[in-house]
Amino acid sequence: MSVTQSEIRSGAYYDSVVLMQLQRNLLALPGVEDAGVVMATPANLELLADSQLLTADGKAAKPEDLLIVVKAASAAKAAGALAQVDELLKRRSSAAVAGSFRPRSLAGAAKALPAAEWVSVSVPGRYAAGVAEEALELGKHVFLYSDNVSVEDEIKLKQKAAEAGLLVMGPDCGTAIVNGIGLGFANRVRRGPIGLVAASGTGLQSVTAAIHNLGGGVSQAIGTGGRDLKADVGGASTQQGLAYLAADADTRVIVLVSKPPDAAVAGRLLAAALGAGKPVVVCFLGFPAPAQRLHNLHFASGLDHAARLAVELSLGNQSAAPSKKAKPLSGHLRGLFSGGTLASEVFLGLNLFLTPLFSNVAMRSEEKLTDVHHSQGHTILDLGEDEFTVGRLHPMMDNDLRLRRLKQEAADPQASLILLDVVLGEGAHADPASELAPAIAAARKARKDLEFVVLLVGTDEDPQDIEQQSKQLSKAGATVFREITPTLEHIIGRLTRAPVTETTPQPFAEPLAVINVGVESFYDSLVAQDAEAVHVDWRPPASGDEELMGILEKMKGR
Amino acid sequence: MSVTQSEIRSGAYYDSVVLMQLQRNLLALPGVEDAGVVMATPANLELLADSQLLTADGKAAKPEDLLIVVKAASAAKAAGALAQVDELLKRRSSAAVAGSFRPRSLAGAAKALPAAEWVSVSVPGRYAAGVAEEALELGKHVFLYSDNVSVEDEIKLKQKAAEAGLLVMGPDCGTAIVNGIGLGFANRVRRGPIGLVAASGTGLQSVTAAIHNLGGGVSQAIGTGGRDLKADVGGASTQQGLAYLAADADTRVIVLVSKPPDAAVAGRLLAAALGAGKPVVVCFLGFPAPAQRLHNLHFASGLDHAARLAVELSLGNQSAAPSKKAKPLSGHLRGLFSGGTLASEVFLGLNLFLTPLFSNVAMRSEEKLTDVHHSQGHTILDLGEDEFTVGRLHPMMDNDLRLRRLKQEAADPQASLILLDVVLGEGAHADPASELAPAIAAARKARKDLEFVVLLVGTDEDPQDIEQQSKQLSKAGATVFREITPTLEHIIGRLTRAPVTETTPQPFAEPLAVINVGVESFYDSLVAQDAEAVHVDWRPPASGDEELMGILEKMKGR
Repeated sequence: MSVTQSEIRSGAYYDSVVLMQLQRNLLALPGVEDAGVVMATPANLELLADSQLLTADGKAAKPEDLLIVVKAASAAKAAGALAQVDELLKRRSSAAVAGSFRPRSLAGAAKALPAAEWVSVSVPGRYAAGVAEEALELGKHVFLYSDNVSVEDEIKLKQKAAEAGLLVMGPDCGTAIVNGIGLGFANRVRRGPIGLVAASGTGLQSVTAAIHNLGGGVSQAIGTGGRDLKADVGGASTQQGLAYLAADADTRVIVLVSKPPDAAVAGRLLAAALGAGKPVVVCFLGFPAPAQRLHNLHFASGLDHAARLAVELSLGNQSAAPSKKAKPLSGHLRGLFSGGTLASEVFLGLNLFLTPLFSNVAMRSEEKLTDVHHSQGHTILDLGEDEFTVGRLHPMMDNDLRLRRLKQEAADPQASLILLDVVLGEGAHADPASELAPAIAAARKARKDLEFVVLLVGTDEDPQDIEQQSKQLSKAGATVFREITPTLEHIIGRLTRAPVTETTPQPFAEPLAVINVGVESFYDSLVAQDAEAVHVDWRPPASGDEELMGILEKMKGR
Repeated sequence: MSVTQSEIRSGAYYDSVVLMQLQRNLLALPGVEDAGVVMATPANLELLADSQLLTADGKAAKPEDLLIVVKAASAAKAAGALAQVDELLKRRSSAAVAGSFRPRSLAGAAKALPAAEWVSVSVPGRYAAGVAEEALELGKHVFLYSDNVSVEDEIKLKQKAAEAGLLVMGPDCGTAIVNGIGLGFANRVRRGPIGLVAASGTGLQSVTAAIHNLGGGVSQAIGTGGRDLKADVGGASTQQGLAYLAADADTRVIVLVSKPPDAAVAGRLLAAALGAGKPVVVCFLGFPAPAQRLHNLHFASGLDHAARLAVELSLGNQSAAPSKKAKPLSGHLRGLFSGGTLASEVFLGLNLFLTPLFSNVAMRSEEKLTDVHHSQGHTILDLGEDEFTVGRLHPMMDNDLRLRRLKQEAADPQASLILLDVVLGEGAHADPASELAPAIAAARKARKDLEFVVLLVGTDEDPQDIEQQSKQLSKAGATVFREITPTLEHIIGRLTRAPVTETTPQPFAEPLAVINVGVESFYDSLVAQDAEAVHVDWRPPASGDEELMGILEKMKGR
């Protein structure tokens, strides 16, 4: 009959690697059947329970306690194993760290390795923000591996970094590659012309590995942390990373990867990406791609595809960027459609670029038009919807409704670009341009600043004579397209403007040198990659005593 | 000073084309400044108000009333215009219809043109279901152009059609091409090997036109109506259309287009598409593509892209379909991931195919795991989430948590395929296979029916020796992939099964002959395309009197 015994250590701090090794060493002792070494959080207690390792003592432990559990063949064996804990904890995990000079503070490490412009932070979450802040105060960029950091702390850190022209990758930044050296977890990959910005973690690793496996190479891989593109963080690090890669001469193609971003943040990032001056592969997981390609933006359907596109683009000579001959318009788009699917397609193609974009075909309630009879902001309207067609011919046969709405929009000073679909073919109006062109010409005569775009759908065999239709509409002053993608590109070019990016010092100018605080094995990795590094022999403030930590924080005036 | 006068006609039925022409003719009269001819629905009254055409009389009109409004330079001119309404209404819209034999009933038309296997219905919405039902009872396929038909009626019609082996396209089916002839609105396009199923309307038109413009050709274009892929309609017509095109020898490539479908319906359709035996281009607008290509499914990012893919595929010699050597598994997937982005990517790649699929990385609440400590159905679990990593090393360094969970899943008879990501590189575990492979081998020894798949991420330069890792994992009995897409393909092949499709008679066997009920100009189009057609001189039952209609319905026992 097995016996389970446990021990609680309060207020003690150990590196997680040390704890993992303690668990392994306990398991290796004779008579020991299972062992658990964890911080006693509710989640960890549940995991222990799943493994039949939760004791009555263990249940009473507090989240900040270290809980050590041993299941053994007998009470004596269990007790014997627990008695060896102190001895086992002394076995160092890292030979490299053991043999090196280990300053006790960040400041000391900064003096010991003045070339270090980066600090890698992997201490437990509740201490991580404090260490990162200290690093920023020393003028260092921060690779913040630690997770379990609050969003509030993340926002504060990123604001502080932006003010100082520094970069914070993370929190929960699993991976990055800076000047060829991997931080945290990183695959070894060829250097090359592809720069990446990503939430980081396995997504970024999988893309960098695939780029290497396809024969391509990586200039820089910037992790931002999984929450960077949420509304409250606002894409601060991603924006900065994009600006760095746009300015970096060694980067010829940019890859932007993210889990589903906030729509407004995505819009700002895409506007920045449009102005990057080089091809940008965009992979927003879970977001439908608005097109295959819009200007210099290439949309990938997934991580594999992103890697393949990036490698292809890095081999080719791609021209980029929307032409900016004309001054962008400051007003709104008004799209008056005769059909639903085409309206949906254009809506989905534009709604990351023009925010907010309203429509009666929108799926999400916040994008639904409040009143279909009156446009608001950028609007895409399907005039073929049921509500418009009771006792009335479809707008593809009867232009009356569209002509009236066109007049209404033209009279709205907020409207600066009116988009119409004109769908030819059997059954449709025999000569739609004969009615639409005069209305367009009249509206443009009244308002020189008003622009018209027509998406003309048809074939050379249609009864209306597509060339003739196109000519009439162009002559009236509309820009006519026959495919959806160039239509989207034109509208995006006329209605978005790249955000002003501040020039910040390049964090990639010098060979990488790093101060490592936290997980010792990350120091080993840096040394193995021939990077200059120093490991801080870090201990939590006040030995991890929460109450005392609070008092210390207050004394520092934070 | 302009004067606006109106007239109400209750209980009268006119073809919408006739009403449009009445409005045009009124506008053309001397002194008339504007005119409106509409059914007096609330939406139409609001539109009249927007054009300053709503009179006090008009406000009092009922939705089933015809409202005629004239705005003229004087009261005499307005009254004069209204006095001519009867005369103007007599002018026929369609010379073709006027000169042809016009049976008064569907049954009469069916006798007059026995070759007609199709009925095109474009009467006002409230009469449309009745006419469509009559057509089905006569054994005809239905092209149901009419909108404003209730979902309940749509479901009833489609059930009736399925039982009789007939097809209902619509309601609100704007377009279709059957044997080279356009129904409703349709672009004239080359015949060829590309068959389409789509919600119909401008989306289908834009894809067929683009196919033609790119040099391709269309075998059949089947419209289903915009609501067919909603949960309650269940994709009835789309499923049928897919089965027809799969069986059609003239169709070599299938295109499936839809506005955002219900997830469960999408899953069933994709399973059917996987079994179609030919390439299927899938374009679900607003749904993120799970990959570029999975087996014979090619995912398009939009309508243009769908057309281009279809034309490319129709030129090539594409092999198709997942290999079905092994019998598909009947149990569930359990994916145990060490990182979030990779977990998200796989989740998004599979969640249309494996329903329901749960995860702690899901965005939608109904897909969220109820309890992360226990899987439910198909599950993708990110073990690198904050909740799992307090005081614990990341699962990329410490396999303990994953090994315990692997045992737990292997003990669950519901689990039949366990998926693991193994991410190599700097910072990660020095030899993950040395711990994972024995656990896999042990689990497979205990349960022969349990399968393992490993997604191995890494490069040939990584410190772990990727080939050695792969070999260890394969030897233990796992199927190892190094890219995401083939991993998804393998899992889809093992866990989905094509639905049994009933063989129904081909609706495309004979040259198209059509009975047209409703909009006269659709008859003109059919004649212009050299199709055999007959136009029914249709009048609403009981002359459109709602009360009388109800009594008649009751007498018929419906």
